[in-house]
Amino acid sequence: MGMPLELNTMIVTKGREERIENNFFKLVKDEYRLYPMHIPLEVKNSIAGEVRGVAEIYKLEWSGQKTIIYFEIKSLESTN
Amino acid sequence: MGMPLELNTMIVTKGREERIENNFFKLVKDEYRLYPMHIPLEVKNSIAGEVRGVAEIYKLEWSGQKTIIYFEIKSLESTN
Amino acid sequence: MGMPLELNTMIVTKGREERIENNFFKLVKDEYRLYPMHIPLEVKNSIAGEVRGVAEIYKLEWSGQKTIIYFEIKSLESTN
Amino acid sequence: MGMPLELNTMIVTKGREERIENNFFKLVKDEYRLYPMHIPLEVKNSIAGEVRGVAEIYKLEWSGQKTIIYFEIKSLESTN
Repeated sequence: MGMPLELNTMIVTKGREERIENNFFKLVKDEYRLYPMHIPLEVKNSIAGEVRGVAEIYKLEWSGQKTIIYFEIKSLESTN
Repeated sequence: MGMPLELNTMIVTKGREERIENNFFKLVKDEYRLYPMHIPLEVKNSIAGEVRGVAEIYKLEWSGQKTIIYFEIKSLESTN
Repeated sequence: MGMPLELNTMIVTKGREERIENNFFKLVKDEYRLYPMHIPLEVKNSIAGEVRGVAEIYKLEWSGQKTIIYFEIKSLESTN
Repeated sequence: MGMPLELNTMIVTKGREERIENNFFKLVKDEYRLYPMHIPLEVKNSIAGEVRGVAEIYKLEWSGQKTIIYFEIKSLESTN
């Protein structure tokens, strides 16, 4: 009767992030996931992909077997 | 640079729950707390208090160093 | 690339606990499970079973996709 | 009556790691800390320090308000 969780240490967007405004984004993920709040995390498009930037999560919601994270991009990788 | 968390296994209301409707309640707690979702948890007024009932959390939010839980009371203790 | 975890709020032994001595027991569970330490937890034989007693975990180990918990039985249910 | 935890996403050694053999190390940290298992984590000497390498934790123990992690260094930063 435990609760399944996934401990996550980076933000993998799979291109599904929604821009709220400026550097603020929202991302819906399946299942309940535990992310550290207010800590710099790498942002990637896919697990095996390149690091696109660093973000901090400022809000997290769990309901209906979904996790919604709200994060602010703090820096972007230059990709030239 | 870790994230402090508190792992909680019961709902301690301190009388601060707000009724949303019927058996549905909302409770704001200081700091980030991890509660199991969708699992029967004892509800108490205070840590040392009597069990008032059993509830299940269906939504949890973290932001601004607060945790908001939304729970449904599933059964009440009779207190005669 | 997250880490799957199960958040557990009671000790379900399935009869597989090993007595270390007196009221001290060891239990090996599959997969990585997060239990609260030093907090009274109900002990059951099966999820749907009766509560057999209350115990506190004083040591937890994760390795090889197993969780080993060491707990002390603090009180037993009388079953007459 | 919750259990305080710290969610950690990197290994900060403060020079206190002990070599077990070859690339295998043991590190004792105060308090109960949750680290992801079997996932590449950055290793630093101090929070603000340089990344020294990448390691994966293969064993974690909690007892007596201490966390012991066992990790294998998978790659080292070159520092020329």
